[in-house]
Amino acid sequence: MRKLLAEFFGTFWLVFGGCGAAVFAAGVPDIGIGLVGVSLAFGLTVLTMAYAVGHISGGHFNPAVTLGLWASGRFSSKEILPYIVSQVIGATVAAGALYFILNGGDAFSSEGAGAFATNFYESEVYNGRGYSMMAAFLTEFILTMFFLIIILGATDKLANGKFAGIAIGLALTLIHLISIPITNTSVNPARSTSQALFVQGEALSQLWLFWVAPIAGAIVAGYIYKNLLQDNK
Amino acid sequence: MRKLLAEFFGTFWLVFGGCGAAVFAAGVPDIGIGLVGVSLAFGLTVLTMAYAVGHISGGHFNPAVTLGLWASGRFSSKEILPYIVSQVIGATVAAGALYFILNGGDAFSSEGAGAFATNFYESEVYNGRGYSMMAAFLTEFILTMFFLIIILGATDKLANGKFAGIAIGLALTLIHLISIPITNTSVNPARSTSQALFVQGEALSQLWLFWVAPIAGAIVAGYIYKNLLQDNK
Amino acid sequence: MRKLLAEFFGTFWLVFGGCGAAVFAAGVPDIGIGLVGVSLAFGLTVLTMAYAVGHISGGHFNPAVTLGLWASGRFSSKEILPYIVSQVIGATVAAGALYFILNGGDAFSSEGAGAFATNFYESEVYNGRGYSMMAAFLTEFILTMFFLIIILGATDKLANGKFAGIAIGLALTLIHLISIPITNTSVNPARSTSQALFVQGEALSQLWLFWVAPIAGAIVAGYIYKNLLQDNK
Amino acid sequence: MRKLLAEFFGTFWLVFGGCGAAVFAAGVPDIGIGLVGVSLAFGLTVLTMAYAVGHISGGHFNPAVTLGLWASGRFSSKEILPYIVSQVIGATVAAGALYFILNGGDAFSSEGAGAFATNFYESEVYNGRGYSMMAAFLTEFILTMFFLIIILGATDKLANGKFAGIAIGLALTLIHLISIPITNTSVNPARSTSQALFVQGEALSQLWLFWVAPIAGAIVAGYIYKNLLQDNK
Repeated sequence: MRKLLAEFFGTFWLVFGGCGAAVFAAGVPDIGIGLVGVSLAFGLTVLTMAYAVGHISGGHFNPAVTLGLWASGRFSSKEILPYIVSQVIGATVAAGALYFILNGGDAFSSEGAGAFATNFYESEVYNGRGYSMMAAFLTEFILTMFFLIIILGATDKLANGKFAGIAIGLALTLIHLISIPITNTSVNPARSTSQALFVQGEALSQLWLFWVAPIAGAIVAGYIYKNLLQDNK
Repeated sequence: MRKLLAEFFGTFWLVFGGCGAAVFAAGVPDIGIGLVGVSLAFGLTVLTMAYAVGHISGGHFNPAVTLGLWASGRFSSKEILPYIVSQVIGATVAAGALYFILNGGDAFSSEGAGAFATNFYESEVYNGRGYSMMAAFLTEFILTMFFLIIILGATDKLANGKFAGIAIGLALTLIHLISIPITNTSVNPARSTSQALFVQGEALSQLWLFWVAPIAGAIVAGYIYKNLLQDNK
Repeated sequence: MRKLLAEFFGTFWLVFGGCGAAVFAAGVPDIGIGLVGVSLAFGLTVLTMAYAVGHISGGHFNPAVTLGLWASGRFSSKEILPYIVSQVIGATVAAGALYFILNGGDAFSSEGAGAFATNFYESEVYNGRGYSMMAAFLTEFILTMFFLIIILGATDKLANGKFAGIAIGLALTLIHLISIPITNTSVNPARSTSQALFVQGEALSQLWLFWVAPIAGAIVAGYIYKNLLQDNK
Repeated sequence: MRKLLAEFFGTFWLVFGGCGAAVFAAGVPDIGIGLVGVSLAFGLTVLTMAYAVGHISGGHFNPAVTLGLWASGRFSSKEILPYIVSQVIGATVAAGALYFILNGGDAFSSEGAGAFATNFYESEVYNGRGYSMMAAFLTEFILTMFFLIIILGATDKLANGKFAGIAIGLALTLIHLISIPITNTSVNPARSTSQALFVQGEALSQLWLFWVAPIAGAIVAGYIYKNLLQDNK
C-alpha cells in the first residue's frame, strides 16, 4: 500500500509539475519559461521524486516504465496492474487540480491540439505542417526505448546506482528538449491520459498512440538490455 | 547559536539570490534571465547552502520547512521559534541589501503587485485576469506539501541521503517553474515577509496567505509522510 | 561485443538527442529552446549514457575521446578501430532516424551551413561575417583538449570518480554554450560525419577539419595529462 | 609545479568558457544563450575543473578564493603568490585566445563597458541608469563573501564533501544570475584583469574595485566561517 501511495504522489507530481509548468508559465510573454523550462520541469519532477520516494516504490510514475522493468525481468507481473492504476489515478487527480487553478486564471480552452498540455500528432501547434503519425510513433518509440535503456543501465547492479535519480530525471528533460514540437512529448501513457480526459475530442481519439508507442519502446528496451547489454555472468 | 547563524545566512542567501535575480536580471531586454533564470536562482540558493551549512543547522531557511519537519516528528518544538526568528531576520536584512543596491540603479517602484519580487494573488502582473485567492491558496498549499514530502523523503534514513541537497534545491526550482505566474511563488513565509515589509500596501495585506497556505501544506505533508509513507518498522 | 553495442547506442543517443534538439526545437518561434537548450541536450546525452552504459564500454561515444584516452595510456590500441566504427555507425543511423522524422514535418533543407545541425566554418549562419577556418580550427582544438583534460582528470584514480558522468556531460554542455556560433560545435568527428553524409556539399568538403582539430586536441590533452598533471608516483 | 599548472588550466578554462560564452553566444539574435547561458557557462567551468583537477591543486582558479582559504586557516601563506600568478597568467592567455578567435569573426570593439566581457560600474550597458560604485562594491563584496562561505562550508570535514564541486560550481552560476546587470559579475580578480588588459580604458581604471571588493568579501568570509560557523571542537 505504501508503494501504491508513492506511485500516486509521484505521478501526481509529474503531471502537476510538468504539465503545470507548460500550462501556467511556458507562454508568458517575454519572460516565459518556454520549452526549455517545461523540459526542465518534467525532468525535475522525476529527479525529485526518485530521491524522495524511490526507496519506497522504485519510482516508476509511468506505465511504460513499469512494463519495461517487467520485460527486463526486474518487476513482478502481479504488481503491474496496481502500479498502473495508481499512476493513472495520480495523474488524473493532478490534472483536476490544474483545471481548478486554471479556472481561477486564464480562460480554459479545450480546443486545439496542445491545449492543457495534451499530446498530439499531425498538429500545427509548433510548426506549419505538423509531423505525421508515423513520425510521431517513431519518435515516441525511440525516446521511450532509450529512456528505459537509461533506467535499466543506471540502476544495474554494476552501475554507479546512487546517481540513477539524476540520470533518469535529466533523461526526461532531454527527451522533452527533443520532442515537444513533434508530439508535445509523452513517453508516459498516464500523463497523456490525464490531460486527454479533460480536453476530450482529438486528444482522446489520438490517445492510443501514446499508450502503444511508449509501451512498445519500453518492452523492446527491456529485452535489449537484458539480452544484449547486461552482464549476465 | 551556530545553528541560528547558519539559518540567518541561509535565508539571507535565499532572498538575496532568488529575489535579487528576479529584481536585477529577469527583465533585462532580449537577454534577461526570465522566469527560468529566477527559478534556477531560487533553487540554487538552497542547493548551495544545503551543502554549505546543512551539516550545521539542517538547512531549513524557511518557517514552513521548520514546521513541517516538526510535524513529522523530526524537529524539537523548543527550537521552532528561534529558527523562525533567525529566518525572518536573515530574509529582511537581505531585502534591505537589495533595496540599497537597487537605489543605486533602477528606480525603486513600490507600486503594483510583483514589485520587488513580492508575492500576490488576484494580480494581473503576468496575465490578463490574475488567479483567484482560492487558486493561489491551493497552489501554495500543494507546492509546499510536495516540497516537504521531497524533503522528508530525500532525508529519510532509508533514502540516498547525500543527494538530498540536490533534490531539495532543484525541487524549489521546479516549484518556481510552475507557479511564478500564479503567486510569484512563495512556499516560504520568511521570503514573503521580507519583501512585503519594503513594499507595504497590498503586499502586506495579502501576506497572511503566504504564511497560512505554506504552513498548512507543510504540516499536512509532515503527517502524511510520517503516517502513510514512512517505513515505521 | 557488448562494448561495441554500448558505443553504438551511446553515439546514436548523442546524435539523436543533440542534433535532434537542434533540428526540431531550437528555432520554434518565441518558446523555442535556443542555443541554451541545444547545449543542455548535447550534454545530457552524454551524462545519461555515461551512467547507463559507462560501466559497459567506458562511455566514449566519440572518436576523439577514444584517441585521447589511448594517447594517455588508458586505452588499448587494438580496440580503437572497432570503437570508432561503432560510433560512426551509431551516429549515422541516428541521423537517418532524424531525417525520416523530419520528412514527416518541416521540409528538409539540404542547403546552407548549419542545415540538419552540420558543422561548418566561414559561415554566416549566426553572425554577419562568419569565423575563419583558423578561428574554427583553434576553437575545436582548444575545446576538445579541455574536454579530454576533464575526462582524464575526472576519471583519475585519485579523483572523485563517481561524479565523472556529471562533470563530463556538463563539460559538453559548456563547450556548446561557447562555440555553437563559431562551428555549430563538433569536438566529435562521428557527430560531424553523420550529419555531413545527409547534407553533402560544403558539409562534406569541410568535414576534414572536424576530424583533424578534435583528434589533435584530444591527443595533445592525453600527453599533457599523462606527463604534466597526473601523479605518476 | 603540477599544482600551478592545474591552476593555470583551470583559470584559462574559467575565462575561455565563461567570457567566451558571453562574447560569442550571448547576443546571437532570437536563439542566443542570454544571461542564463552565460551564468551556466561560468558555473560549469568551475564545476568541471573542480572534478578534473581539484584533486591536484584544490581548484581555486581565483585569487579571492585563494585568499579566503588562507584567511580561514586552510591554505599556507607561502603558496599564495605562486597561485595568484598562475591564475592571472592562465586568465590572460585565455583572453588572448578569445581575442584571436574573435578577430576571425565579429569585429572586436574595445569601446564601451561590457565589451569583451569586462567588468564595470556606473555603466548603462544593461539598464538606463547604471548602478553606482557603492552598489557595485557592495554587490561584489556580498557575493564573494557568500561564495567563500559556500566553499568553506561545502569542503568542511563535517560536510558532504564529494558534492562540493557541484555546490561551488552552481554557486558561481547563481552569482552570475543575480549580478551580471550590475557589474557584469567578477568575484574573481584574475578574470577581471585578463579582460581589462585587452580592452584598456575604463576597464583598467575601474579594475581596482574588482580586486578590492572580492578580496575583502573573501577574507571576511574566512574569518566568519572559522570563528562563527565552524565546529572547532
